Amino acid sequence: MAEQVDFRTEPARYKHWKLEVDGRVATLCMDVQEDGGIMPGYELKLNSYDLGVDIELYDAVQRLRFEHPEVGAVVIKSGKERVFCAGANIRMLSQSGHGWKVNFCKFTNETRNAIEEAGAESGQRYLCAVNGPCAGGGYELALATDWIVMADDGNTSVALPEVPLLAVLPGTGGLTRLVDKRHVRRDRADFFCTVEEGVKGQRALDWGLVDELVPRSRLEEAVRQRAAEAAARSDRPARATGIRLVPLARTIEGDEIRYGHVACRIDRGRGVAEIGVRAPEGGPPGDVAGIHRLGCDFWPLALARELDDLILHLRTNEAAVGLWVLRTEGSADRVEAHDRLLAEHRADWLVREIRLYLRRTLKRLDVTSRSIFALIEPGSCFTGTLLELALAADRAYMLDGEREGEDRPPATVRLGEVNFGAYPMGNGLARLRTRFLAEPGRADDLRARIGTPLGAAAAAEAGLVTFTPDEIDWEDEVRIGLEARAAFSPDALTGMEASLRFAGPETLETKIFARLSAWQNWIFQRPNAVGPKGALHVYGTGQRSEFDRRRV
Amino acid sequence: MAEQVDFRTEPARYKHWKLEVDGRVATLCMDVQEDGGIMPGYELKLNSYDLGVDIELYDAVQRLRFEHPEVGAVVIKSGKERVFCAGANIRMLSQSGHGWKVNFCKFTNETRNAIEEAGAESGQRYLCAVNGPCAGGGYELALATDWIVMADDGNTSVALPEVPLLAVLPGTGGLTRLVDKRHVRRDRADFFCTVEEGVKGQRALDWGLVDELVPRSRLEEAVRQRAAEAAARSDRPARATGIRLVPLARTIEGDEIRYGHVACRIDRGRGVAEIGVRAPEGGPPGDVAGIHRLGCDFWPLALARELDDLILHLRTNEAAVGLWVLRTEGSADRVEAHDRLLAEHRADWLVREIRLYLRRTLKRLDVTSRSIFALIEPGSCFTGTLLELALAADRAYMLDGEREGEDRPPATVRLGEVNFGAYPMGNGLARLRTRFLAEPGRADDLRARIGTPLGAAAAAEAGLVTFTPDEIDWEDEVRIGLEARAAFSPDALTGMEASLRFAGPETLETKIFARLSAWQNWIFQRPNAVGPKGALHVYGTGQRSEFDRRRV
Repeated sequence: MAEQVDFRTEPARYKHWKLEVDGRVATLCMDVQEDGGIMPGYELKLNSYDLGVDIELYDAVQRLRFEHPEVGAVVIKSGKERVFCAGANIRMLSQSGHGWKVNFCKFTNETRNAIEEAGAESGQRYLCAVNGPCAGGGYELALATDWIVMADDGNTSVALPEVPLLAVLPGTGGLTRLVDKRHVRRDRADFFCTVEEGVKGQRALDWGLVDELVPRSRLEEAVRQRAAEAAARSDRPARATGIRLVPLARTIEGDEIRYGHVACRIDRGRGVAEIGVRAPEGGPPGDVAGIHRLGCDFWPLALARELDDLILHLRTNEAAVGLWVLRTEGSADRVEAHDRLLAEHRADWLVREIRLYLRRTLKRLDVTSRSIFALIEPGSCFTGTLLELALAADRAYMLDGEREGEDRPPATVRLGEVNFGAYPMGNGLARLRTRFLAEPGRADDLRARIGTPLGAAAAAEAGLVTFTPDEIDWEDEVRIGLEARAAFSPDALTGMEASLRFAGPETLETKIFARLSAWQNWIFQRPNAVGPKGALHVYGTGQRSEFDRRRV
Repeated sequence: MAEQVDFRTEPARYKHWKLEVDGRVATLCMDVQEDGGIMPGYELKLNSYDLGVDIELYDAVQRLRFEHPEVGAVVIKSGKERVFCAGANIRMLSQSGHGWKVNFCKFTNETRNAIEEAGAESGQRYLCAVNGPCAGGGYELALATDWIVMADDGNTSVALPEVPLLAVLPGTGGLTRLVDKRHVRRDRADFFCTVEEGVKGQRALDWGLVDELVPRSRLEEAVRQRAAEAAARSDRPARATGIRLVPLARTIEGDEIRYGHVACRIDRGRGVAEIGVRAPEGGPPGDVAGIHRLGCDFWPLALARELDDLILHLRTNEAAVGLWVLRTEGSADRVEAHDRLLAEHRADWLVREIRLYLRRTLKRLDVTSRSIFALIEPGSCFTGTLLELALAADRAYMLDGEREGEDRPPATVRLGEVNFGAYPMGNGLARLRTRFLAEPGRADDLRARIGTPLGAAAAAEAGLVTFTPDEIDWEDEVRIGLEARAAFSPDALTGMEASLRFAGPETLETKIFARLSAWQNWIFQRPNAVGPKGALHVYGTGQRSEFDRRRV
């Protein structure tokens, strides 16, 4: 993979999706271009997809939130006459390396979670019109919507054929959503997941696999009707004007990646990405109209977009960089002022979207399989929204005191109201609450410290940072911490971090990223799937797979 | 592994543990015999353990429940002067195949869960005296107890060195118990899990890694004191007499395994184990004294012991038998009568233990990586406790109507009070409640059917069975179901079943078996751990491991 994957796109450049808006209802039409794969070597037949198709879907889902405040319902449908979607392209999967498959599944999962979040948090409900075979990732996409309407004809079925056909799991939340979202009975789910041809018609409805069954001739009309009803219930403003998500400016020169407020320097020797986030250059606008006027230039939105892109870029294109070191720089007061403005106008549709986008981006960090350290030094601004970066980190080192020869006061961190619930993790709890499960009252006690700059000793006492070396020890302690981390097995770290980051309650989201993904990753390594005689490997060759029959 | 593992043992045959009872406090002293490994090829130095050591621990934990009703507290300590326990033996792990490692971890996990259950449900609290290095599985054993007392000296530390030392995860619940039982802050847990030498003294106490720190000279006394306090709070009867767990009678002849009420025939060609469970031969005793008199001959206890042993045997010794088919036979009335007797005397210590043992055994079935089908035919008795077998199965087929030429009425199933809460799954819910998450009121509605024999149509309507073919279809439908199952990838089925069986809430237990185990299984496959240059492989050879640095 010499070529780097770029996650930035826009509707005019879509190859595979058409986004149409008609009043309060939008339609996302999937019409995958067979020869439009992001990598060579496979044809995207039958509306099967690869990462490139999903990058466009992700972009569309984002734009619907920001550019279309009026849209209260989104219909996902197929542009092919006789098929809905055959799922992730099998040849793409069989030719991909382990890391690519896993990273692909993670990204597609995040987009489906964002589809559900749109309905739950943002008044934008997704519906799905199933007009033909809807299999594997195709059905998983349907499962991520809030209402599945299915044509009642001999051709249309829903299916999760991964186990019988490919010896892998549905990798985009399918199993979890079956039993934990739709609450399909486990014995029926068991049967359903083992029949290649899937289930159609009345049984699909009776078993709860779809929400509505209509004659093929009435499919469009039925979905349009349901979408109109959903849109009518939406709290999104019918007459508001969206903001345009202008192309995100980014430069990559050698090992430096630069955005407006975010920069990253990759140190390949150490396997470290040094990520810097800058506070706003000026104060926030005086009112909500100012936020709308600034649009993508409004610092919190720019921050979310830049961080989001950087995370995706590093995950996909820089697999060998295993440790991300986060620093911030600039005026904590200005960060705080922006947070306050957002909190004050949280009822505004755009402000709501910005806060939700920050939340999604921070969640992306949580499920990133890289070690994350925060370094809190003089001149930094780990405050409110930016303090979440330190709370999302596996560890935070904070320099206690001044640095000799530097004209800066000692570092402080500062809690904001946002740290107490605006950005819940996948487990549904604020990072602070997950952090203090041992003392449930502690997060509440810390409210008294909102807005107070906390030096190293106070931050340690408050439990916000891990270690607070002074200048004498700082360099050695941090260096040793980074070097030790870089020396450990990347796989063991991935498993350890995934296990330590999500204490507390489990949700659909955490179950998908923990149980389902971990099992899928395991299976993606097993000879029965990926070995020379494995099912994924021999698929389509006419050969039969041969399995090692021992159960593990 | 030509030799089969036998899970049956007794204190007189222990090599590695000493069980002593002194009034209300028992002591389990771990003193592993270096040359006593269950397999050749490694020495169990420094109180490191293998499956054989854990089989004895499991046996002791069981006996403490049944043979020692008077024991309200159990102290786990080391018989070595300068070390507590070095964890699972590394050479054993490095020479073991993937399946062995995974199965070993599963069994050790179940025993640690049973230790916690003893404290939570049975008034028998475990405490741990840490007298020296306590690492990896050693610390995980300590974590499973309710109170860890640690010597405050330069030699004693707790550690989870798996990640830095071996490139694998602590596989027996360590990560999960750190953050979800002890609620250790995630950044501290992160640090702790990456330092080979672990943490000692005051920091271990401050971070919540242990519960109490005492001078080495006071360790014995301090633990004895805490144990006496715990025992004094126990509701176990100080003056009761236990029942003796007599050696379990079992015969294995060719592919037939026989116990008193349970039998199993292995069909290697099809990869199927046909498991039959027989109802009691007679009615239950008239009172609780009769139960105590019968002891191990009391049908429910015999059933639990036999099923438990069979599950462990098949899991460990018959890996290629991927599908277990469960049948029952005999008088449903007698099953029901036994269930009723148990329910009536549930406050009796022995009855409580029997019900909890059935619960643990059914849980063992839930986490077994084999497909499980129940076949409900004329003459069967899927009633109450035995109905749980059908509810634990991935599918249940029930024959609708009589069999021609057979002089038996059509099969029925029957709900009992026990199906509504006596045997919760690892997720904390009764199997019925997990089954009907879609309709939370349904399980309650079904209470009205308790005791009513339900024919195939009624059972299907009640949602208790999956398919109800009549005699004409039965043979083909079941055969096709079994054959199809046997043809799928064993790995994909393991991941699928682990994902579909546990809808609903997550608990410490489900998190251990889902997230932690799945990640560990993945890592146990990765070249960074088990490849020729992997850390587990080169450990102790003087070579350095070489890692593929790409993160997945």
